[in-house]
Amino acid sequence: MTSSKTSPALSRRRFLGAATAAGAGLAAAGSARAEAPKPDPLITDVQDWNRYLGEGVDKRPYGTPSRFEKHVVRRDVSWLTASPESSVNFTPLHELDGIITPSGLCFERHHGGIADIDPASHRLMIHGLVDKPLVFTMEDIKRMPRENRVHFLECAANSGMEWRGAQLNGCQFTHGMVHNVMYTGVPLRVLLAEAGLKPNAKWLMLEGADASGMNRSLPVEKALDDVLIAFAMNGEALRPEQGYPLRAVIPGWEGNLWVKWLRRIEVGDMPWQAREETSKYTDLLADGRSRRFTFFMDAKSVVTNPSPQAPLKHKGSNVLSGLAWSGRGTIKRVDVTLDGGRNWQHARIDGPVLEKSLTRFYVDFDWNGQPLLIQSRAMDSTGYVQPTKEELRKIRGTNSIYHNNGIQTWHVKANGETENVEIG
Amino acid sequence: MTSSKTSPALSRRRFLGAATAAGAGLAAAGSARAEAPKPDPLITDVQDWNRYLGEGVDKRPYGTPSRFEKHVVRRDVSWLTASPESSVNFTPLHELDGIITPSGLCFERHHGGIADIDPASHRLMIHGLVDKPLVFTMEDIKRMPRENRVHFLECAANSGMEWRGAQLNGCQFTHGMVHNVMYTGVPLRVLLAEAGLKPNAKWLMLEGADASGMNRSLPVEKALDDVLIAFAMNGEALRPEQGYPLRAVIPGWEGNLWVKWLRRIEVGDMPWQAREETSKYTDLLADGRSRRFTFFMDAKSVVTNPSPQAPLKHKGSNVLSGLAWSGRGTIKRVDVTLDGGRNWQHARIDGPVLEKSLTRFYVDFDWNGQPLLIQSRAMDSTGYVQPTKEELRKIRGTNSIYHNNGIQTWHVKANGETENVEIG
Repeated sequence: MTSSKTSPALSRRRFLGAATAAGAGLAAAGSARAEAPKPDPLITDVQDWNRYLGEGVDKRPYGTPSRFEKHVVRRDVSWLTASPESSVNFTPLHELDGIITPSGLCFERHHGGIADIDPASHRLMIHGLVDKPLVFTMEDIKRMPRENRVHFLECAANSGMEWRGAQLNGCQFTHGMVHNVMYTGVPLRVLLAEAGLKPNAKWLMLEGADASGMNRSLPVEKALDDVLIAFAMNGEALRPEQGYPLRAVIPGWEGNLWVKWLRRIEVGDMPWQAREETSKYTDLLADGRSRRFTFFMDAKSVVTNPSPQAPLKHKGSNVLSGLAWSGRGTIKRVDVTLDGGRNWQHARIDGPVLEKSLTRFYVDFDWNGQPLLIQSRAMDSTGYVQPTKEELRKIRGTNSIYHNNGIQTWHVKANGETENVEIG
Repeated sequence: MTSSKTSPALSRRRFLGAATAAGAGLAAAGSARAEAPKPDPLITDVQDWNRYLGEGVDKRPYGTPSRFEKHVVRRDVSWLTASPESSVNFTPLHELDGIITPSGLCFERHHGGIADIDPASHRLMIHGLVDKPLVFTMEDIKRMPRENRVHFLECAANSGMEWRGAQLNGCQFTHGMVHNVMYTGVPLRVLLAEAGLKPNAKWLMLEGADASGMNRSLPVEKALDDVLIAFAMNGEALRPEQGYPLRAVIPGWEGNLWVKWLRRIEVGDMPWQAREETSKYTDLLADGRSRRFTFFMDAKSVVTNPSPQAPLKHKGSNVLSGLAWSGRGTIKRVDVTLDGGRNWQHARIDGPVLEKSLTRFYVDFDWNGQPLLIQSRAMDSTGYVQPTKEELRKIRGTNSIYHNNGIQTWHVKANGETENVEIG
């Protein structure tokens, strides 16, 4: 065996510099030198977890996070809404990494609470302008050709409070109505082919089996393109709050269209003018007119770290991390500024870059303690560049709460605290 | 609004044929025809979940699976081992889809139970043949450049019971010591560059902070290639049973090397001859010699559905599904036979095909009720083709329980029941 002797001298690594003195010193256990640094008991002492047997493999047939991660949770705003059954909670983006959102942390938005469905009793009906109306059991659907795809789901109202200026102090709240998972499902075009679309079939109506009977109209072109009727997410059955046992996956389009607990698809020749596409999910302009059926989620990005809930704690080396996505394709480039837009640099995009999926970016940077104004700007495969909030307001005013994909600004103060601000 | 009238006639869709009469009939509610089929109460009745408000967004800050999915769990074999703290449980492959394993279902293998570590007190030391021994806190590590990659982790003993013939009736037990997640971590080469390797540095020893102090030797070449020191899996912090807060990710190599609860990396010029690479994780040949340091997990595949725990239930259309992986690159092709090897067809590979990652394949087929002998055979990007069990035994005998990547056979009987068999 090779020597395991180590230098008793306190060492510093180049990468992290002097700011990590407390943690970075190697304990000088056994050193006779009078000037040896004080041993760190966390290094010299044997910890309890190294001393006693831990939990066995029989205790948690379905595992859960560490008890030291209890702060990593969805946070709801039920106090803001009529009831918790018709409310929303938010993905803790500042605590996550990579591009897969853990299923238990995917934000929720319900209109009548979570339908608690027995899959053996669930049915999906396809009817209307079809040759043969059909009813599918879950077992039927699982016997048809399936596909796997990773897609983001973003609520059209994500960042909606920001239309009128910086409001919420944390990217969990400004941007947390987005998640990204791998779905498994049957292409809707396969199901529609079974039923046979009549020549005048132009629109579908998708309806949920929840207490609100949530429904939305969807153009046939999109249904025949890339829509999945999904029964699994991140490898396992859909979670109840994400539509168990069956939901629509409408890649790149606003989350409200992704009907959960899907029980019925009616085929027609016009949109249905449902509540969720008339009084809601329309974009009221300054002149009183409304944009409607604004399906696409345009390119957007946000720096998740640092951010108000994740301040800078150390000078020297730091990792800036963020997410970018586009409903129109892939992310081509992300630019980041640390000084409010005077200088921009290309972020390092890392991990899979997938179609209509969250994409992870990083900037590895040194912080000398000066205040920062951090922004990120995404460009997608169509060449579209994420606009500033001011550019958006000039065109769309400030009446709407939907489709705000403007550039977000975080102000890092000299003490590392970070706040949500707007700059001219 | 378009007409929502539907044909009162019972319809059948071409795809699923006649076998789904019970579920596929559209109820003829309101039809005056005397011969109308009996309405299905599951379609005509309003279900409770459509009648009453469900759970709100404030109830589960961290979500869990549906109560109807309680059977989808890891299953342990503590009865087979000295204690549940030094045992194993298995991923329910037959219940999963896509390529991401849910973190709560990733199989477990411990030697002294799960270390319950406070990340604030956790340290990683790098010492031995380095210029500057170093100790890292978790915050230190999270300030260094990180990467995201999806990789499979397979225990070298996966399928080990099958060396001497078909033993276990379910792919959860024959193949369930594998999982596949997206990791976030710092490349080990970055950490080693901070410490500075001495010219005679050839091997590393990785050691865990659990009660067993699990350790293994790793060649420096691999450490400098693609090893990650990971702190996150599937977007969130590592799960306790997967090494929280820090583990080694050794892409494509046997799982035992992926030291969990990583606390120490010693750099030397020879392997350590640790317990786990001398008395265990060596491959005893027929002549009494042992293969050692057999790191690579060669190309392998298994049909997850149908399989003994997931029998065929319907004639007509069915989906055969499976997983393939290789520790040497990507999966290029998967062949499937339904008749014990007389006829082979290319499986449809679906979803991302990533380096050293599980890869999902399907065969959409019709079943007329005849018995089947199902096998899958993977080919990887090096051109290597998964061998039969007999080919493996000819070379390696039957003493070992490690590195069995032989072709698996499932026998589907006329009633759909499926069992683990071997064929000449």
